[in-house]
Amino acid sequence: MDRVIRIGMLGCGTVGGGVATILARESDDITARTGAKLELVRIAVRDTARDRGLGLPAGTFTTDPLSVVEAEDIDVIVEVMGGREPAGSLIRRALELGKPVVTANKELVAHEGPELYAAAQAAGVDLAYEAAVAGAIPIIKPLKESLAGDRVLRVVGILNGTTNYILTRMTEEGADYAEVLADAQALGYAEADPTADVGGHDAAAKCAILASLAFDTTVHADDVFTQGIETVNATDIRVADRLGYVVKLLGIASEVDGRVGVRVHPAFLPKAHPLASVRGAFNAVYVEAAAAGELMFYGPGAGAEPTGSAVVGDVIDVARNLLQTARGAIESQHRVKDLRSIDELRTQYYVLLDVEDAPGVLAAVATTFGDHGVSIAQVWQEGAEDSAQLVLITHRAREDALRTTVEALAPLPSIRSVASVLRVEAEVFAS
Amino acid sequence: MDRVIRIGMLGCGTVGGGVATILARESDDITARTGAKLELVRIAVRDTARDRGLGLPAGTFTTDPLSVVEAEDIDVIVEVMGGREPAGSLIRRALELGKPVVTANKELVAHEGPELYAAAQAAGVDLAYEAAVAGAIPIIKPLKESLAGDRVLRVVGILNGTTNYILTRMTEEGADYAEVLADAQALGYAEADPTADVGGHDAAAKCAILASLAFDTTVHADDVFTQGIETVNATDIRVADRLGYVVKLLGIASEVDGRVGVRVHPAFLPKAHPLASVRGAFNAVYVEAAAAGELMFYGPGAGAEPTGSAVVGDVIDVARNLLQTARGAIESQHRVKDLRSIDELRTQYYVLLDVEDAPGVLAAVATTFGDHGVSIAQVWQEGAEDSAQLVLITHRAREDALRTTVEALAPLPSIRSVASVLRVEAEVFAS
Repeated sequence: MDRVIRIGMLGCGTVGGGVATILARESDDITARTGAKLELVRIAVRDTARDRGLGLPAGTFTTDPLSVVEAEDIDVIVEVMGGREPAGSLIRRALELGKPVVTANKELVAHEGPELYAAAQAAGVDLAYEAAVAGAIPIIKPLKESLAGDRVLRVVGILNGTTNYILTRMTEEGADYAEVLADAQALGYAEADPTADVGGHDAAAKCAILASLAFDTTVHADDVFTQGIETVNATDIRVADRLGYVVKLLGIASEVDGRVGVRVHPAFLPKAHPLASVRGAFNAVYVEAAAAGELMFYGPGAGAEPTGSAVVGDVIDVARNLLQTARGAIESQHRVKDLRSIDELRTQYYVLLDVEDAPGVLAAVATTFGDHGVSIAQVWQEGAEDSAQLVLITHRAREDALRTTVEALAPLPSIRSVASVLRVEAEVFAS
Repeated sequence: MDRVIRIGMLGCGTVGGGVATILARESDDITARTGAKLELVRIAVRDTARDRGLGLPAGTFTTDPLSVVEAEDIDVIVEVMGGREPAGSLIRRALELGKPVVTANKELVAHEGPELYAAAQAAGVDLAYEAAVAGAIPIIKPLKESLAGDRVLRVVGILNGTTNYILTRMTEEGADYAEVLADAQALGYAEADPTADVGGHDAAAKCAILASLAFDTTVHADDVFTQGIETVNATDIRVADRLGYVVKLLGIASEVDGRVGVRVHPAFLPKAHPLASVRGAFNAVYVEAAAAGELMFYGPGAGAEPTGSAVVGDVIDVARNLLQTARGAIESQHRVKDLRSIDELRTQYYVLLDVEDAPGVLAAVATTFGDHGVSIAQVWQEGAEDSAQLVLITHRAREDALRTTVEALAPLPSIRSVASVLRVEAEVFAS
């Protein structure tokens, strides 16, 4: 086995450092499993002077990513620079040149995945992106290969570690959102600007990628209905707990009658559901398939080595294909199926109202729900005299009916504010 | 795409029926994803007259499995007959003829997997067996491919649905083993002769397969230290619960300093561990890897369509390779690493003793533990006057020291019987 596959890497931040470390540390086993030696020969970075502690020769680094892509002695491109450009153009160029590409770029794949895949198909080379969704968790390959003979009905994921960490601490400590967020920022679990995470945008990007693959269609990040966890409060979590639920930020994608719905939002999830016990910064993806039934894939959703492990797994795959002049599995035909609007969603809802503790409040609220055809399953009052809160759980209703109900509640004289509205994902799961 | 891959199937029981059903139902998508039409053209069965309700032409069936293997117009062999022979000989013959084989045969792979893989390597054809372990759960492919660049440190599995169902009901209902087993048999969750399941042998076979793959070695089913759940009683489960554990039948494989330990037994598992929330007949495999960290794969461990889904996923894989005259991923070099004896295990133990409620009992028990160098972490007495029970939790101790301790306890005059000894897997897990 004296064949060598030469790798060029674009970017060398957290994930790139993990990739370089793993390639060096596991070199012998990787050679045995690939059938060739994998050599990381060139890395494009912004600052070639910086010591990255990777023990690579100084000549490995360059500031010109295009030169790495175009170098004749480089066989495989690993893109870990992130962002849509120049990453997208560099990947397209590599594919044009017939070089397989492994990317960890969630943002790029979420916005242009099906188009990039079409470019890879046209060029007849592999494009792999296991690391773009849920870090170390093998989920792209199971969807694309293990379930190739099956039909996916629903994908539900805890796809963002920061928000799951925050919600877990809120649940286990009874703490408030702002307090836990500040602490998470201090501990490095949340960014100084946490918007991408707490606003649900990071999870939405990953959910778009999973939906495109699972349902053989084209879903872009912007197609995903997205709500964050910023307004989830301690009362929501306490009420959920009392009713047998936990509050989780879920990415949910499903296909019904050929139309695909994709949404990310906090929701009540039954405690017995496999996803409910996913704690802290871990991610998990639950997949329901026609034949396989309920599957779940769990693990770290981020980090240098976990994400690096997924990248290196992909590199070994494409290298093996290259050695055999073969191609990896066909992923999906990426048709363009209709999207279901969030308005069409039918689920249960939890509504928390700050009310005056006066006679007639409940009657006024109940009448408003009834007028809009939304049926109430449970209602009770929380809190003391001057700060009463009304908790309502509805039966299944359409999202648009619930929204007009809530809009009609707001101006009622006895209602101080609509404190929370959360979806209750009670009935859609088989277990 | 007018290429056709012709499949011959050996056996048509539960799993075979699932395979045939899925191949027919998902035919269009399978063709798109494979790049060829998969046709199930011949099936070897014992009784060709039986109507299997699969809508296949009568001429599909034959009683001669070797004729299916040797037929020139058959490209891929699917073996779902089970048992070591004639399945093993038929698979070897197919490999000799250069035909890729997909098998769901746990017993065969657990006893001869590395040797069969060597035969496949020698013949240059694929041998796939995703369905042999944990039904629908993709675990072979993640270990072989997704983690090809990583180093597996430990594999811990709930690998048998029957025992997990029984233990879950015992936990949730406080019920006794015999009672739940009888009910499980009535409901079809347990066989009339439940020995293979409740004795841990089924789990041991799967654990051998996982260990061989994860640690690049050769572990046969007979190499696995195996204990069943027959002696687990309601007190064990109640004590575990009180201390923050659940009782699970675990398959545990790990490599330490180049030596591999593989064992199956009931154990106390911390409630916060991801495997602890796996309920009922579900299976799950927890994998700890050097770079990826903690992963878990969860799903149905048996059943016609779940297992069929895994078989069809493998068939698509080998068919795609066949179309490209390529091979699937190299799995492992299957070296022969030394096995660690169970005697060398160091863990905590739970010991339940039926004792006379007389002065001096505890002193005698404590002295015996001390004499054998086993240190007691917690001890308390359960139950009423004439049926007192002493519960002990040890600090970490070697298995052989614990065993000689227990042997020395049995003859003590104040001890009526050693009711239970279970391992407490508290410290070995990162979370």
